[in-house]
Amino acid sequence: MVFSDRLSAAIVAKRTPLMVGLDPRLEQLPPDLQLHFSNAVFRQGRGLAMAEAYEKFCAEILEVVAPLVAVVKPQMAFFEACGPHGMSALGRLLSLARQRGLQIVLDGKRGDIGSTAEAYAAAYLSGAESDSWHADALTVNPWLGLDSLAPFVNQAVATDSGIFVLVKTSNPGSRDYQECIVDHAPLFQRVAEHVECLAIQTIGGKGYGAIGAVVGATYPEELAKLRQIMPHTWFLIPGFGAQGGTAADVAAGFDSMGRGAIVNSSRNIIFAYDRPAYRQYRDGNWQRAVELATVEAIDQLADQTSAGQLRVDCKTA
Amino acid sequence: MVFSDRLSAAIVAKRTPLMVGLDPRLEQLPPDLQLHFSNAVFRQGRGLAMAEAYEKFCAEILEVVAPLVAVVKPQMAFFEACGPHGMSALGRLLSLARQRGLQIVLDGKRGDIGSTAEAYAAAYLSGAESDSWHADALTVNPWLGLDSLAPFVNQAVATDSGIFVLVKTSNPGSRDYQECIVDHAPLFQRVAEHVECLAIQTIGGKGYGAIGAVVGATYPEELAKLRQIMPHTWFLIPGFGAQGGTAADVAAGFDSMGRGAIVNSSRNIIFAYDRPAYRQYRDGNWQRAVELATVEAIDQLADQTSAGQLRVDCKTA
Repeated sequence: MVFSDRLSAAIVAKRTPLMVGLDPRLEQLPPDLQLHFSNAVFRQGRGLAMAEAYEKFCAEILEVVAPLVAVVKPQMAFFEACGPHGMSALGRLLSLARQRGLQIVLDGKRGDIGSTAEAYAAAYLSGAESDSWHADALTVNPWLGLDSLAPFVNQAVATDSGIFVLVKTSNPGSRDYQECIVDHAPLFQRVAEHVECLAIQTIGGKGYGAIGAVVGATYPEELAKLRQIMPHTWFLIPGFGAQGGTAADVAAGFDSMGRGAIVNSSRNIIFAYDRPAYRQYRDGNWQRAVELATVEAIDQLADQTSAGQLRVDCKTA
Repeated sequence: MVFSDRLSAAIVAKRTPLMVGLDPRLEQLPPDLQLHFSNAVFRQGRGLAMAEAYEKFCAEILEVVAPLVAVVKPQMAFFEACGPHGMSALGRLLSLARQRGLQIVLDGKRGDIGSTAEAYAAAYLSGAESDSWHADALTVNPWLGLDSLAPFVNQAVATDSGIFVLVKTSNPGSRDYQECIVDHAPLFQRVAEHVECLAIQTIGGKGYGAIGAVVGATYPEELAKLRQIMPHTWFLIPGFGAQGGTAADVAAGFDSMGRGAIVNSSRNIIFAYDRPAYRQYRDGNWQRAVELATVEAIDQLADQTSAGQLRVDCKTA
């Protein structure tokens, strides 16, 4: 089954567009894993000790969230920061996620040209268990232009996987270049038009293509406009939760059927035991905090993304 | 010593701005290493066999070029395509390059925001032998904006390392977004102004900062303009040799003293034994072809980048 249809089916089955981001940070790990790290670091070095702690942490998260959500988004940078041991740990976590039936969007923001882009695509979109990393989709940076996207698109088509192109990010710095006015419209709209064109060329049975877009949720008006420009493009919406986006903010990213978007939350879920509401679980049963926070996020999204609610939002947008 | 001064000293010592790119591609490896791979792949799997072949190939290249050039640029994508074994091999190659006195610009084109960008910077700009990868500089993608560059800048300053920001690339697709006209000038000029600002803030004793720019060599007029906009910024000029740039094309990237730029050649050097001129060395002594091609590239650059030649070029630009 092609990626876009696989993603649709998985979201329908779990009845939520929530995606859980796996962004392990050493200083925010629960107490038991901090202790494990402290004990291991002298014996086996910082890289391996950190990789072990991240792997244990993320494996527990996967067990908790797998029955609840359809998609996870591991953030590569944190595994790369562990060195080669981190990259091995990431590979095992991807296998575990797959065994648990989860779709995997690997957040590596890769981008290059020609055979170099082909090598990145081969590394992460192999389409099967391999010696590298097997994800369902990869985030890709478009700065180098359309010819830099082509190798990723070709690999995605060849292996029934997908990519999410960074159209508009949720950070303040997205103003610096993405919002520059080119021919009376912000540059990110031009990128959006290109991505939609690629999505149409790779369209699956459910009306969406293999080429998706990362669209920040901190500016809801832009999200509505981008949904208009990209009706066949899966949206990956970051910034829900800790980065300031609310469920109402992301509503405009869905189509009139309440589909076509996945909404990421990382810190608010995986480090839920640091939030006042769940702090009682910090010592001993932090997994329960993760579970409760996941259910909470699912409920918040469900309130805002019912089809009726969305139809109103889209008309006023 | 800060990165910019270290780079200056290394280039003066070797008397060439040539940088050798390490872009191993399986299908272009010399016959002996292709054979080694074929024998190993059934026994130990594709990822490990490929990583071993790439490591042997690049280690030989490093031994050949270390007496001749100051800087090498490993391309991460090819090592990532081998899976975790490739990342381990890359780490060992960086150690070997350092032992041979080479400056290392790691070509990973990373880019992200906040603590994620910090994790990438920590992974590659540790400033010392570490459990991850220790490079002198990393290529960075600016699409996410100035706040996405800040963590890399901070890490570079803290560890006496550097970054090269993708200001203008050498591929045709660089027209799609980098050349978009914003306030009567192409967008890449705005990125260039920002990079120059960061270079000035990190300036070393030789007049250049820790924050450099990747500037494509296929459009020489742009290179001259960018040199005007960024007088304190190290240039990494790709596209010399196989990508079509000539030594005359890159001349405008240097300052009036013939300094401030490193010029990359990858395929024309590392796969020199596939070029008609050096084909006699393909079987048996491919290292000699690499050596001769390196010397040839150094000579070509020397003819064009003598100070007298450059002064003329810069005035007419």
